[in-house]
Amino acid sequence: MSGTPKILYEGKAKQVWEHEDPNFYVMHFKDSATAFNNKKKAEIEGKGVLNQRISAKIFQYLASHGIPTHYVRSLNDTDMLVQKVSIIPLEVVIRNRAAGSLCKRLGIQEKQELNPPIVEYYLKNDALEDPLINNDHVRLLNLASAEDLASIRAMALKINDLMVSFFAGIGIQLVDFKLEFGRNVSGALLLADEISPDGCRLWDARTQEILDKDRFRKDLGNLREAYQEVFNRLEKNT
Amino acid sequence: MSGTPKILYEGKAKQVWEHEDPNFYVMHFKDSATAFNNKKKAEIEGKGVLNQRISAKIFQYLASHGIPTHYVRSLNDTDMLVQKVSIIPLEVVIRNRAAGSLCKRLGIQEKQELNPPIVEYYLKNDALEDPLINNDHVRLLNLASAEDLASIRAMALKINDLMVSFFAGIGIQLVDFKLEFGRNVSGALLLADEISPDGCRLWDARTQEILDKDRFRKDLGNLREAYQEVFNRLEKNT
Repeated sequence: MSGTPKILYEGKAKQVWEHEDPNFYVMHFKDSATAFNNKKKAEIEGKGVLNQRISAKIFQYLASHGIPTHYVRSLNDTDMLVQKVSIIPLEVVIRNRAAGSLCKRLGIQEKQELNPPIVEYYLKNDALEDPLINNDHVRLLNLASAEDLASIRAMALKINDLMVSFFAGIGIQLVDFKLEFGRNVSGALLLADEISPDGCRLWDARTQEILDKDRFRKDLGNLREAYQEVFNRLEKNT
Repeated sequence: MSGTPKILYEGKAKQVWEHEDPNFYVMHFKDSATAFNNKKKAEIEGKGVLNQRISAKIFQYLASHGIPTHYVRSLNDTDMLVQKVSIIPLEVVIRNRAAGSLCKRLGIQEKQELNPPIVEYYLKNDALEDPLINNDHVRLLNLASAEDLASIRAMALKINDLMVSFFAGIGIQLVDFKLEFGRNVSGALLLADEISPDGCRLWDARTQEILDKDRFRKDLGNLREAYQEVFNRLEKNT
């Protein structure tokens, strides 16, 4: 590749850039915060840096426990070198406690423990507002074969087990979180995207204080401070 | 039991009454038509009779092909004797062609053939507007064990195969339909509720004319005439 790198994808909170080695991408973390399918927006100074750092720590932790991820290394405060993947347009949500859309959908109490955890698939499609879909819909839309979907579910549950312990060790309840998967140039299934308080519900285990993007959705303020607290605890522990 | 029978349940299109033998219920088919979670309503004279007759024919056909159903016999034009069942509050939808909510959810073209068919579970709950749920939600809500749900899915697909042939024999495409299941006093899993043009999408195979409740949803008129046409073809063929 010659000349300046090109942007390949601009999302709500990230950009994906070409890298000089065609097997890799550069993932840039923005300061933008969005919620309710992009209806609510703000810029939170420092969020990009914190999410890049938090994601890097989590990817490193998961990789050290045998989870294949797209993470290679952090290039600077906001940029991460990742393997080039073709993203499966499926948001995989794992829930350990009832919160958010699950409570609205099923009419159940918030905070109820979900054991075994609940796994949900949402179609990643802004125009359709990311609808919940089932295994038959995944097949119909050719998002993943039955075998691939079984692998994705098994990986998601293993990641959940690892992350529940990881966060418990720093006094945080992992309520729920969203994962995305992709295939690298060799066809291997990898955990991709980011894992940060933008896509997780994280509650202080003692005070139940909210340490994630719900602070923005619910106008609780101090979003950056909450993300900083998550990062500080991760850094102290790793 | 002494005295007059008591009504046990009043739904949008049916009533369920006690029977003198406590192992049975009487299911009464009303003329009421409703759509959009009860927001649109009308009385269609003769609909109750037609739905009772159509359901009876379909239950008889399915029973003769090994499907256990709650149907015992028709008592009169609008009343059906059925086994007493405890209904599983799950609407099981089987789809052979894309239509209705599936097209809205996934952004796909109407009429697209779905082969293999798509199976969906909806929580039967008016206040929550019958949300789509997945297998994990079924478990969480204790609606059915994993084994029971596998049996329900297998029964639903077998019923679909039988009904697709049955309707093809009378020049009708079975686009999609809704089933409900229950357990009788012995704990056996039975097909319950009704199977009528209220809960099926039925298109004339040649003209693609709509012969089901979509005539009411879409203000196409002649609902009773369409149901009568379905009944006439069933009667000629059985």
